[in-house]
Amino acid sequence: MTYRLHHAPDNASLIVRLTLLELGQPFDAVLVDRTRQAQKSPAYLALNPNGLIPVLETDSGPIFETGAILLWLADRHGALMPTPGDPLRGEALKWLFFLSNTLHAGLRMQFYPAAYAGEDAHAQACLRKTNAANLATHLKKLNTLAQGHDWLLGNDLSALDLYLAPLLRWCALYPLGDTGWFALSDYPALAAILERLETRGSVKAAAQAEGLGPRPFTDPRLATPPEGSAT
Amino acid sequence: MTYRLHHAPDNASLIVRLTLLELGQPFDAVLVDRTRQAQKSPAYLALNPNGLIPVLETDSGPIFETGAILLWLADRHGALMPTPGDPLRGEALKWLFFLSNTLHAGLRMQFYPAAYAGEDAHAQACLRKTNAANLATHLKKLNTLAQGHDWLLGNDLSALDLYLAPLLRWCALYPLGDTGWFALSDYPALAAILERLETRGSVKAAAQAEGLGPRPFTDPRLATPPEGSAT
Repeated sequence: MTYRLHHAPDNASLIVRLTLLELGQPFDAVLVDRTRQAQKSPAYLALNPNGLIPVLETDSGPIFETGAILLWLADRHGALMPTPGDPLRGEALKWLFFLSNTLHAGLRMQFYPAAYAGEDAHAQACLRKTNAANLATHLKKLNTLAQGHDWLLGNDLSALDLYLAPLLRWCALYPLGDTGWFALSDYPALAAILERLETRGSVKAAAQAEGLGPRPFTDPRLATPPEGSAT
Repeated sequence: MTYRLHHAPDNASLIVRLTLLELGQPFDAVLVDRTRQAQKSPAYLALNPNGLIPVLETDSGPIFETGAILLWLADRHGALMPTPGDPLRGEALKWLFFLSNTLHAGLRMQFYPAAYAGEDAHAQACLRKTNAANLATHLKKLNTLAQGHDWLLGNDLSALDLYLAPLLRWCALYPLGDTGWFALSDYPALAAILERLETRGSVKAAAQAEGLGPRPFTDPRLATPPEGSAT
């Protein structure tokens, strides 16, 4: 079957879109209308009981969790990750999980503090302040990892680069008016990855599909998508 | 080489210990002395720049991130996870990432709120209150997943069961005096998994090594380890 990517523009589905494009795999993009909270509809919850975007429908059923989808696709198509048995597999897995459970999870806290600290504005501000410092620490570690080679894991583009780039984009954009903790120039090895990525056809195609502008990672602007809404 | 597991009793290294025991793989357990903050020492940071326990040293180098270690071990030894290409692989991966980036990450917030919300006691209390409700929601989803079969993913024990069990143990124990949100009986399918696990030699061996008592998952008590400290 053709893959079906349930997406909203500039959501985590962008990471999966980039991966499918890099793999050269055809897919149908199915819009999840966030303005109607379609990700909480019974039909969507049947695909992902957590009500989060993305879901990728495959011949093995629906897969959710961005990191899981990337790993599954990379293994299925034999690209973008060291294969099981490759001496670099462990290195790739540990940083993939770090991106998922530390950087990506931390960004969700920064964007949706009420979901973690409740409606108390002071508590939300405390969370964002401490969490922003944590995020900067995580990015410094990734910058160290990336030093001395073209991509995060070495000389080969991997799914981890495709995961990282949208996360960095969002650091610069969200939450609106409270991104002062982040400057891409503080992480030159990561900035170099983003520049390399922006020359690739996959990024140009994804940016067009989701309205991300000509330099979606090194000079991010809010999405102006042809359909749907990022929030 | 023989695996070297850098561990502290009743830390996330317990999950890796259980997995190595289930796989029948010999390993050397190297104590990380938390009372001296040894996980922040230069020697340990060279193994894991994030300063977190566990690290597993392998013939492919040191691997950190609990989920990454489990997946790497399962693939290496051909057990405890559906292999790549198995129709159940995607199902296993999505819930493995969920355990890592949602349940495990959420528990860290519950245990160490200052690391996320700073030193403000009110902010910490707000975080713990909202986060505890989130954790209960996550556990309900896992209980639904487990219903109707012996283990989380179906009829076969997997690394996910070995990951889940210590997380549930910690829900009942930590933070000291503030575990009222959690009752294992609210999640009967998960409780049944824990009961099945406690009959296994791997659990008995791990409980003895780390001082976890006779029923470490269904009737957890604070660890009384033969060496080292859990905190």
